[in-house]
Amino acid sequence: MSNQKLYNVAVVGATGAVGEQIVRLLDERNFPIKELKLLSSARSAGTVIPFKDKEIIVEEATVNSFEGIDFALFSAGGDVSKVLAPAAAAAGAVCIDNTNAFRMDENTPLVVPEVNMHAARNHKGIIANPNCSTIQMVHALKPLYDRYGISRIIASTYQAVSGAGNKATKEMLRQSREVLEGKEVKPDVLPVSSLPVKHQIAFNAIPQIDKFQDNGFTLEEMKMIRETKKIMEDENLQITTTCVRIPVIQGHSESVYVELKDHFEVEEVRQLLSRTPGITVVDNPEEQQYPLASEAAGKKETFVGRIRRDLSNPKALNLWIVSDNLLKGAAWNAVQIAEHLISEDK
Amino acid sequence: MSNQKLYNVAVVGATGAVGEQIVRLLDERNFPIKELKLLSSARSAGTVIPFKDKEIIVEEATVNSFEGIDFALFSAGGDVSKVLAPAAAAAGAVCIDNTNAFRMDENTPLVVPEVNMHAARNHKGIIANPNCSTIQMVHALKPLYDRYGISRIIASTYQAVSGAGNKATKEMLRQSREVLEGKEVKPDVLPVSSLPVKHQIAFNAIPQIDKFQDNGFTLEEMKMIRETKKIMEDENLQITTTCVRIPVIQGHSESVYVELKDHFEVEEVRQLLSRTPGITVVDNPEEQQYPLASEAAGKKETFVGRIRRDLSNPKALNLWIVSDNLLKGAAWNAVQIAEHLISEDK
Repeated sequence: MSNQKLYNVAVVGATGAVGEQIVRLLDERNFPIKELKLLSSARSAGTVIPFKDKEIIVEEATVNSFEGIDFALFSAGGDVSKVLAPAAAAAGAVCIDNTNAFRMDENTPLVVPEVNMHAARNHKGIIANPNCSTIQMVHALKPLYDRYGISRIIASTYQAVSGAGNKATKEMLRQSREVLEGKEVKPDVLPVSSLPVKHQIAFNAIPQIDKFQDNGFTLEEMKMIRETKKIMEDENLQITTTCVRIPVIQGHSESVYVELKDHFEVEEVRQLLSRTPGITVVDNPEEQQYPLASEAAGKKETFVGRIRRDLSNPKALNLWIVSDNLLKGAAWNAVQIAEHLISEDK
Repeated sequence: MSNQKLYNVAVVGATGAVGEQIVRLLDERNFPIKELKLLSSARSAGTVIPFKDKEIIVEEATVNSFEGIDFALFSAGGDVSKVLAPAAAAAGAVCIDNTNAFRMDENTPLVVPEVNMHAARNHKGIIANPNCSTIQMVHALKPLYDRYGISRIIASTYQAVSGAGNKATKEMLRQSREVLEGKEVKPDVLPVSSLPVKHQIAFNAIPQIDKFQDNGFTLEEMKMIRETKKIMEDENLQITTTCVRIPVIQGHSESVYVELKDHFEVEEVRQLLSRTPGITVVDNPEEQQYPLASEAAGKKETFVGRIRRDLSNPKALNLWIVSDNLLKGAAWNAVQIAEHLISEDK
């Protein structure tokens, strides 16, 4: 490996929930790094993060941070990406952006490597990582789309609090303690930290992730709808979603109903998904085996189970799709994109 | 009220999660009781339960417990109901059964008072209370069925642990403490106490409630499907369900997609539901108001919100339906049936 090409990598938002996972994965994957630059807001700058046998001091991210950087991985919020990703791209970096800033931009590819890596190759400096709840769903549905065609998707999500960041996770754990100790619960982060009304998440289910849009859907629901159509390259796909936060730390679960265009056999679907890179089928009702957030946490795969034909509609299939929202849903998908680009950069 | 007719009432399963709520409601409602008999398994017999200014000693339920009883409210499991409800009915009691034992029996009405009280009047001694997850859904959907017609229902549930009994609630609280203290979690009740495989419920989502059937659906899912058709008196209703246990103590939530036959206006649906007895519409996205399990717990209503037209199908509506699974989903629905029968017994 001594002749392997090495890259300068910047992680923007290195102290956040996703940034931490990106740094961990770059290490675990032995990513071919020449120099690793960890960037954050001014508030978190100065934090020391261990990486391999070194300690890296986090620096404040500015438009001047990207000189000589080959890959810049962003997860510091949409406002940061909007300003800094174009600056990084102009400096010659390939930006892989975990935020919502560029996902629906027509010049920005929106990429899940197992689904549409071809789109990444046309990037103009920025590649967008889809929303966590979108990634695991399209990962599982794309093989069905290609084989049978999909006419309709109806998804209800069971999303972990870490998707709202480390503060939301801490709040959920604190509230859980308060409930167990019979104390009053005072919510102050979820459902949306920037909005005035807060709701308890401990031992609860909150049907709001991100802000409401004028059409009555939340932004999270609209992300799933729009991003799925863009990734599938099918604007006629009928899709509806209900996004719900539940008291889980790491790992999103999704109940997905999908109407296929062509006839299918359930066993054939199971085989097809089993052969799909990155998918693990866990589907043995007799042994009470199905995907669980508790078992998906910390893993890179998308897990699919409860695969069964709808009793009232022979063209429809029900699925239970689970993946770690911080890994395949964010950090791993981003690192994977970079690895794919490198494997083609010979 | 001095001339009001009084009734002898028996509660079978008085020490269980639902039985406790029935006793509490009989008190709160000033149910016209001459004598209250609290019954249980031999194991729990001898327990002393306060009621009004008295203390009642729980007795073991046997086929001979029902002499002179006017109403017998059962929630001690299907096996107990199968043996004792026919005995109680033979002794002249009207049995209101919370278990799955007689729900699909063609001679047993399956009743939600706001939906099909007419069916109760034809009882032959036993009236079945539907499954908790069914009750709140049909309560919210019946007005839409009557007004517009319904062609398809796709429901995903977010069900509280108390639906699996007091042991499941205790396990969830214990596991939550273990996770918070960094201890190993050893599941021993959920998902199904009588089955060998156990899964962690704390900070998790388990897509199994009750046993799997040969068709890949769980019994809970099949209950929702079959009971909804029976209550709506429409065998052609297309319905599919995915039932999921989440770490909530009390209060089931449901994400429901429903295709209506006739054209509807969303505001009209909101008005229609607002006028339905027992339904409270909580649907103000601008103020971040929607039904929450935490707010439904302890209340008798069914709460409906997130009412919005599907963006991809103008005939479809998305709803978020929440109710206390121990109250409207069980104890309150049962007491309500008895109250209705009494109000007609003049």
